[in-house]
Amino acid sequence: MTGPAVPPLRWAEIIAVGTELLVPPRVDTNSLYITERLNEYGIEVRAKTVVGDRRGDMESALRAALSRTELVVLCGGLGPTEDDVTRDAVAAVIERPLEEDGGVVDAIRQRFAARGARMPEINRRQAMVPRGAVLLPNALGTAPGLWIEHDGRAVVVLPGPPGELKPMFDRVVADRVAPLAGDSRLHRRVLRICGRTESEVDEATSPVYSRWLHEEPAVFTTVLTSPAQVELHLTTRLASASAASARLDAATAELALVLGPDLYSTDGRTLEETVGALLRERAWRIAVAESCTGGLVSSRLTDVPGSSDYVTLNVVCYSNESKVSWLGVSQSDLDSCGAVSESVAEAMADGVRERTGASLGIGVTGIAGPGGGTEAKPVGTVVIAVTTADRRVVRTFRFPVGRTRVRQFAAQMALDLARRVLVGSGGGGAFVFTGGTGRRA
Amino acid sequence: MTGPAVPPLRWAEIIAVGTELLVPPRVDTNSLYITERLNEYGIEVRAKTVVGDRRGDMESALRAALSRTELVVLCGGLGPTEDDVTRDAVAAVIERPLEEDGGVVDAIRQRFAARGARMPEINRRQAMVPRGAVLLPNALGTAPGLWIEHDGRAVVVLPGPPGELKPMFDRVVADRVAPLAGDSRLHRRVLRICGRTESEVDEATSPVYSRWLHEEPAVFTTVLTSPAQVELHLTTRLASASAASARLDAATAELALVLGPDLYSTDGRTLEETVGALLRERAWRIAVAESCTGGLVSSRLTDVPGSSDYVTLNVVCYSNESKVSWLGVSQSDLDSCGAVSESVAEAMADGVRERTGASLGIGVTGIAGPGGGTEAKPVGTVVIAVTTADRRVVRTFRFPVGRTRVRQFAAQMALDLARRVLVGSGGGGAFVFTGGTGRRA
Repeated sequence: MTGPAVPPLRWAEIIAVGTELLVPPRVDTNSLYITERLNEYGIEVRAKTVVGDRRGDMESALRAALSRTELVVLCGGLGPTEDDVTRDAVAAVIERPLEEDGGVVDAIRQRFAARGARMPEINRRQAMVPRGAVLLPNALGTAPGLWIEHDGRAVVVLPGPPGELKPMFDRVVADRVAPLAGDSRLHRRVLRICGRTESEVDEATSPVYSRWLHEEPAVFTTVLTSPAQVELHLTTRLASASAASARLDAATAELALVLGPDLYSTDGRTLEETVGALLRERAWRIAVAESCTGGLVSSRLTDVPGSSDYVTLNVVCYSNESKVSWLGVSQSDLDSCGAVSESVAEAMADGVRERTGASLGIGVTGIAGPGGGTEAKPVGTVVIAVTTADRRVVRTFRFPVGRTRVRQFAAQMALDLARRVLVGSGGGGAFVFTGGTGRRA
Repeated sequence: MTGPAVPPLRWAEIIAVGTELLVPPRVDTNSLYITERLNEYGIEVRAKTVVGDRRGDMESALRAALSRTELVVLCGGLGPTEDDVTRDAVAAVIERPLEEDGGVVDAIRQRFAARGARMPEINRRQAMVPRGAVLLPNALGTAPGLWIEHDGRAVVVLPGPPGELKPMFDRVVADRVAPLAGDSRLHRRVLRICGRTESEVDEATSPVYSRWLHEEPAVFTTVLTSPAQVELHLTTRLASASAASARLDAATAELALVLGPDLYSTDGRTLEETVGALLRERAWRIAVAESCTGGLVSSRLTDVPGSSDYVTLNVVCYSNESKVSWLGVSQSDLDSCGAVSESVAEAMADGVRERTGASLGIGVTGIAGPGGGTEAKPVGTVVIAVTTADRRVVRTFRFPVGRTRVRQFAAQMALDLARRVLVGSGGGGAFVFTGGTGRRA
């Protein structure tokens, strides 16, 4: 131990090391796991850095992090090669010598021996430890991690592979971070909304959530968007889990009031999980006939464990012929209205529902692009029908272009329309071009 | 202009600003676009930082970046609220006063007027400019960007929304970065491999690619993995595009020799694009019958523009009954071998192929988990069959567990087996449990 003891931890930073992390499309994802684990102990991440395998860059990044926060988590660069210089950079910044640890050398040697191999000399590098550092055992690899207390701050050094990093970090959080954390914890609630744009959500909710910033305990709100979905992340800092839960319940109830049925999840459930739970409650089965989404709706529905309870058969009917022969869509509707039309979408939903004996059918047909658009039906036009024995909802949407985006928007809105039919809400939401409020047959 | 002119740019750093970027599952993706555009001009990114909306943190991040590189790109924090302090932080670090720019105020006022609204006073903040900075017009939002030359370095400040950032960055790269870049450019080649694990790829290729580091021009290799896929990114730095292309061609040819038919793409094409191109060459159609992948194979195949040329109908048969009634799988096979068996996978492939008149059929059946595993067929067991009129390949795989992962591995290997049948390669690759080398009917 050097310098004073580490104070109650409140802020952390994460430094990911590796030149390969700077090459698109790679992004650092270890930090997401680390952030979530730290948040559980009330520790917030205030900055994240990715640096390549350059010792000088690593040193300046570590110095900058230590100037801002009490806990720095470094990931990666613990391999045996000359590129792996995290140990050296850390030792230089905290001004302690690196010393070979005999126990680590033995452990690495044994790992090799277990596979009938001799330890290459180069692996000795992995046994170099800054003086005074606590070793964190690595059950799944050769590189041990490090816990270093220095000058009233703590530095954790972890191996980069997520399979090695996660169990090691879990252990160090429980053994060393938790005792240094304060009493308060960060509690989070995720609200998921479909059918409004980000600005519509913000306009409706910001008068509510801005008020919470000045209340005690404060609730912080972050808005995140993905195609046809908006998430509100509510966070509050409290010692008592039950008080936090009550605070977040009250905040959620306020937002539910302004969001109405567009708010579909307040417990972290995805849209497909929400639809699945509604089907299960009713002991209903669902069947999907997709064209432009090409299997995306089906894939999302079946991403949920246990979905075989309510999914038996879905069809991707990409050609007109297959819509006729597999779903019973009428050739005359295809000829007169075109494949992207409300009558065809309805016939697809009815056809797949009736032929599988499901209670609810979805039909999706549209123009994902880049080709196939016309003046009347430009790229991004998608028609979605949801039908049951006594309810039919059909909507024509105009989604923002880009093939992948049109497909994502369409799959999301198809699941959302199914949800609305299941809960008996007629709303249509953003991007609706025609369709009004649910016709009944 | 303060201090000496900016030297030929070689290194850059990116700082993304915004507390919301530190909340999981958000990751900074603007930096991927920025990195790719800079690489085109031979400029490499040596570090990336994400900081929250804290002026002090931003200042120390900018100082650290300026100590390491010649070009710093800051994104975000240019909004009109008190949280938006990027302008203030930059002005403080480069020690120049912030001054209101009348032209910017007018432009913002006009943007509001065009929507019949008055500019809120708070938006004047967006017109504050560090003295001597060059304004970068923003056609899509109120916040202009900034280009600042300072002390032999350049700082670019961009708005955070990708829709505003990308066109502005394209313009500043063309107008200001390109003239300062050296003659050499970074040229990249992406090789995609399916059927080997990362360590198998590395074992086979590292003796080849390590040699290139010491050659002139050097070629750098980065290995990236995703489920059942390994990518090798080759990079070389040269002024001449044709010389770089020849160098990368030669490097690719060396790797093709050791990778054989497991290398499926050397031109950036995805696996589904590769399969699509092979189908198109033969004027073949494909049909897919999926169970555990639930639509993922179909979704990936139809993610390719123009895929309606070779996809007409795919089926997701989740229940045993649907496998019998929609695909003609025999009830006795289901009873005697179980739904996850080679005979059922083959019958699914044959059934969907024959009933749609396609030339090639894929059948996928397996146990994605978490439930449904047995001792003989644990979670992760997936059987994939690919059949044509005169060729049949069936493989049983044991994939690493995790529902999403099993489904991703299975979809990838299904597309890869189809590719192998199309090119006439019998290989099976990693993760194969049984199935040997392609039986023929």
